Amino acid sequence: MTAIRAGLDVGGTKIEALALTADGRIAARTRIPTGWGDDGVVAAVHDAIAALAAEGGFPVSDVASIGIGIPGLVDAERGRVLHAVNLGVAELDLAAAVRARLAVPVAVENDVKAAAVGAGSLRGDAHSMAYLNLGTGVAAGIVIDGRLWRGARGTAGEVGHLSVDPEGRVCGCGQRGCIETFCGGGAVSKAWGRGGALPILDIFDRAEQGDPLAIELRAGVAYGAASAVRALVLGADVETVVLGGGVTALGDRLLDDLRRRLRAEAASSAFIGSLRLEDRVELLPPGSPAAALGAALVGASQPTPPSRPASASVPVASNTPEGALHG
Amino acid sequence: MTAIRAGLDVGGTKIEALALTADGRIAARTRIPTGWGDDGVVAAVHDAIAALAAEGGFPVSDVASIGIGIPGLVDAERGRVLHAVNLGVAELDLAAAVRARLAVPVAVENDVKAAAVGAGSLRGDAHSMAYLNLGTGVAAGIVIDGRLWRGARGTAGEVGHLSVDPEGRVCGCGQRGCIETFCGGGAVSKAWGRGGALPILDIFDRAEQGDPLAIELRAGVAYGAASAVRALVLGADVETVVLGGGVTALGDRLLDDLRRRLRAEAASSAFIGSLRLEDRVELLPPGSPAAALGAALVGASQPTPPSRPASASVPVASNTPEGALHG
Repeated sequence: MTAIRAGLDVGGTKIEALALTADGRIAARTRIPTGWGDDGVVAAVHDAIAALAAEGGFPVSDVASIGIGIPGLVDAERGRVLHAVNLGVAELDLAAAVRARLAVPVAVENDVKAAAVGAGSLRGDAHSMAYLNLGTGVAAGIVIDGRLWRGARGTAGEVGHLSVDPEGRVCGCGQRGCIETFCGGGAVSKAWGRGGALPILDIFDRAEQGDPLAIELRAGVAYGAASAVRALVLGADVETVVLGGGVTALGDRLLDDLRRRLRAEAASSAFIGSLRLEDRVELLPPGSPAAALGAALVGASQPTPPSRPASASVPVASNTPEGALHG
Repeated sequence: MTAIRAGLDVGGTKIEALALTADGRIAARTRIPTGWGDDGVVAAVHDAIAALAAEGGFPVSDVASIGIGIPGLVDAERGRVLHAVNLGVAELDLAAAVRARLAVPVAVENDVKAAAVGAGSLRGDAHSMAYLNLGTGVAAGIVIDGRLWRGARGTAGEVGHLSVDPEGRVCGCGQRGCIETFCGGGAVSKAWGRGGALPILDIFDRAEQGDPLAIELRAGVAYGAASAVRALVLGADVETVVLGGGVTALGDRLLDDLRRRLRAEAASSAFIGSLRLEDRVELLPPGSPAAALGAALVGASQPTPPSRPASASVPVASNTPEGALHG
């Protein structure tokens, strides 16, 4: 019998699920549609576990732990989810609800923080890094000395809502000129206003054709991402910033823009130049199951009740055995 | 014989020195003019130790350790100072030079980081805090779980050089709109351009009299300080931000402006509002010897050579016995 550590990345449209063996090999991956509302999300989590077992050819009883990454405010200690608006969840005791049908340890973590844990494991170096998610919104998770760092109140890495332009566009959060207004997929698509299946790709293409709005928005993406990198390095001083999320589907076009922007800033400031920021950014490899893997690792390391809740942290596997991504 | 832990805050014009007893009582405090250049700084450190001994009525041989807080880039592990431009020091093995005449452990730390350690000790709570120094320049030191946090390359807390306005004034560092251009004493005085002994006080007074430039600069101070607080809370998620440095000589006038600005931002953004930033800022009490005390504590806890230099940290006394400030 294998002890399977299941990891789920619950998104607004789909759940990515992954089964990790005790020796760190990925035994199965699958993807199912997500649910809506409290009951829908809980049912979808159970469906995902069943689908994962079917995919991996193991009984559900082999699942020894479940980790769930989910958007929204998460009380990791209590396994509670708050304000997961994309899922129709206002307040849900997710861990307890899942445990009611499956008697295994269940951990819940914010999806970006889970992805940070997974990205650290995938890199094989989680000494000092941030995972910066450029998705619909923008947020980062920070991993220091192999541990997820939640900060005093769980907002560590929420750089998306740092304002970097007092005259900038109004953000969904109510402030003006937040980093997210520059490089969040949702805000950029809204500013573009022309619809399309992949507005961010469209913007990059049209910018190359000389469209003035596209050029402005594309430059803004690099400015916003560079601002986030600066905030993470000058605030938390992480060694490396790994970028992921939907916007990074642009791949090297995005990374090249970002590095060009960082080099331009370095050229105008010896201090910024000394930080060598352009060498400290990298992209999460496309298709990396960072969030589901991180969730599995978080689930596998159920913390003993910490004496000081606010600083509770989760150990990160510093290495995933080779082949883990191809299991 | 008492084991005295000497702490020195070496500034551009003066050295503040402090003698801490083994039980954490401040046995003496003194202040002497600072020196210029490598030899001048080393000589002034020795003069400060001698003055401290005279003030406290103990022989110099009672000094069991020396901690030195100094502006500039500090390689704390090697006790080296780089680019302390205000002191005419380009590169100095300060710890070794002091030890050449006094055979005791000598630690060197960046002055703002030393002040963070001291501020944490003075508060009696160094669980999760930043010390934000609004001096000629702007920088912060971060203390987490009782330990000074240097980050991967020693830039943790350097929020003064985060740009928060792409159209802002050019900073000494070469960027535009850095936080320091808004609330650093040097940049604000330069923008004011009217000289005077205490330009920042003058600006606040003139603003009350309706001077348009003074009103703009005063609002900028609050904006810059609020931006720094946001960066520290959203990046590192410290529980508390303690403000100190020359600009905070304005006392409640500054703190009231800052809190008003933070409340206005909270009113326009539920997310920012949920952080309750206005309750998480406080001023270092006037006259608090945070930097010299922090230096003494850093000196008293000479680290054993860390296995991973970049994450070396210094334990912070979580409590200074009552009366420590009045010894």
